Amino acid sequence: MKRNIYIDNMHLDEALRLWERKLSEAGCLNPMVPELISVDDSLNRITAEPVFARLSSPFYNAAAMDGIAVRFQDTIGASETTPVKLELNSQFQWVNTGNVLPPEFNAVIMVEAVQPTDESTVEIIAPVTPWKHVRTIGEDIVTTELILPDGHRIRPIDLGAMLATGLSQLTVRKIPNALVIPTGGELVQPGNSLRPGNIIEFNSRVLAGYLTEWGIHAERSPIVTDDPGTLKKAICAAVAKYDIIIVNAGASAGSKDHTAGVIGDLGEVVLHGVNIRPGKPVVLGIINNKPVIGLPGYTISAVITLNLFVKKLADYLQGIQSPLASSLEATLARPLHSKLGVQEYIRVKLGKSALF
Amino acid sequence: MKRNIYIDNMHLDEALRLWERKLSEAGCLNPMVPELISVDDSLNRITAEPVFARLSSPFYNAAAMDGIAVRFQDTIGASETTPVKLELNSQFQWVNTGNVLPPEFNAVIMVEAVQPTDESTVEIIAPVTPWKHVRTIGEDIVTTELILPDGHRIRPIDLGAMLATGLSQLTVRKIPNALVIPTGGELVQPGNSLRPGNIIEFNSRVLAGYLTEWGIHAERSPIVTDDPGTLKKAICAAVAKYDIIIVNAGASAGSKDHTAGVIGDLGEVVLHGVNIRPGKPVVLGIINNKPVIGLPGYTISAVITLNLFVKKLADYLQGIQSPLASSLEATLARPLHSKLGVQEYIRVKLGKSALF
Repeated sequence: MKRNIYIDNMHLDEALRLWERKLSEAGCLNPMVPELISVDDSLNRITAEPVFARLSSPFYNAAAMDGIAVRFQDTIGASETTPVKLELNSQFQWVNTGNVLPPEFNAVIMVEAVQPTDESTVEIIAPVTPWKHVRTIGEDIVTTELILPDGHRIRPIDLGAMLATGLSQLTVRKIPNALVIPTGGELVQPGNSLRPGNIIEFNSRVLAGYLTEWGIHAERSPIVTDDPGTLKKAICAAVAKYDIIIVNAGASAGSKDHTAGVIGDLGEVVLHGVNIRPGKPVVLGIINNKPVIGLPGYTISAVITLNLFVKKLADYLQGIQSPLASSLEATLARPLHSKLGVQEYIRVKLGKSALF
Repeated sequence: MKRNIYIDNMHLDEALRLWERKLSEAGCLNPMVPELISVDDSLNRITAEPVFARLSSPFYNAAAMDGIAVRFQDTIGASETTPVKLELNSQFQWVNTGNVLPPEFNAVIMVEAVQPTDESTVEIIAPVTPWKHVRTIGEDIVTTELILPDGHRIRPIDLGAMLATGLSQLTVRKIPNALVIPTGGELVQPGNSLRPGNIIEFNSRVLAGYLTEWGIHAERSPIVTDDPGTLKKAICAAVAKYDIIIVNAGASAGSKDHTAGVIGDLGEVVLHGVNIRPGKPVVLGIINNKPVIGLPGYTISAVITLNLFVKKLADYLQGIQSPLASSLEATLARPLHSKLGVQEYIRVKLGKSALF
């Protein structure tokens, strides 16, 4: 019975540096190729180049209020005691918010401040300054102005800025895709009957869920049994099609743990085992310049190692830098001792206590 | 030429209270009906009832390490000077992480601490405590335990908790749907040629984008011209099919602003005009117990009023309470004066300055 007892126990920082260097050398950290898509489909996508305005917004002088368009010169001197009468067409025109300001006028008076006297004359009791209540050309954005930088995740308001300045398409990064391969003869799909020793296959769903949250298009493969040949075939097929390949589990040193061996046969095992707990038996590999990561079977170990070794890779592929998880200083309710030389990840419940 | 000059100028707090009360009376704040879906499709959905474990996890005692399953009694007294020999099958069995613990054993010794002496015997140099390195039945979750509360947005890890405890379906709230109706004869769809006075129709994309971010399934209708009859038809059709109807714009008091009139003809105008700036000419209406909201045409006004009068409604329909937007105290770089009695929303650029 073959047992691979010894796996690495590399310090986490060293492991992260090594993994990043190897990924970089293999070209695995290059952002995805750009693709041209419609602005209408671009919510939450990442720009692949800076976006510049094609038109000014507005691209004509527009009334910013409902009321009358006037020449400010005609309103000088208007007051409650000396109201000014204006003639329709020659001295004013009715405008609604957003209407083009007729070229002979240069200001707008709000409808509330206008007193119609008959069908074709109005009275005003205050003067108006030039361009008052007018949205002048380029007030919001001027042609050639930078609207969005490279590597920017598109928000709802950005859709407006692009469309308003005459853009209907833009270049974004392709969405990286990942395959999660669940392995293990003991796995059964949810909803089937169970015997002792069976494990309901849920890890792939959890891992695919996190990848989805990180902007990756994640798919799940059928369950692969503990047979190195079958696993080899599954990984080969995945490497040809996906940007990230996750194998879960078979990452440890048990008699049925073939992930490291198969990765080694097909490409390079960058490292097998880091000094963290849980999560030690992770396998980081590269096959045909594609990252292939073997995660431990215990769910929390798999999630921790996915965060440590795949999240940043997902960022690189998208050309973004996710904000770091927020941190908080707290007092432990009871002492905790970690094994010497092991970096331990402990889940805690946060609470406020009157005692501290 | 018909001009509806006077609109309300209700205080914002009063407007919000009135809107919430009217929506509540019309049943518009009741959460969406539940629907049964597969756990696999439930990421980011909202639970419609508490979720309880159907099975314990694990549902059998399992090895938590690769190594040997033993009886702790057989290991008592083992030390470096007095190693204990164990016989295969009668005193130990090889196990991999996750294997069922054979019922005759009650502890696991890690493979690293086991010295095979021949094919069927091993030596150990330390005793083991009962249930050491064993994941006992229900260690993670016990049958009938609460996994997720009502009104909970499902995270990747929740998929694992549900599937691991034997659930493959759950009851979630239906996703509310909304229709955004862009109105205005001056609107043209993006990508078409433009004349002065045209406005590229982008508001509906921005508004639908925010609704999407808030968990609503948002659709956009074709552009509706400034004709009350056409608008009436469009709103009638929308009220029959959607949970939230947004009309943008025609909300003001200009000669082409028909939103309030049409809502009044078809149902009730709850209010028309609040004392905020920008965003004053908003129309809040209810038709056949469906909220119909007329938003101002100026994009930032539309976004502000959408936030004020629709976001909470979106929460109610989903049975959730979104966290409040984060706030920050800052010093204004120049003085700002708002008109008396007007609550003003000012966009600012936040920066750190050595001066303050």
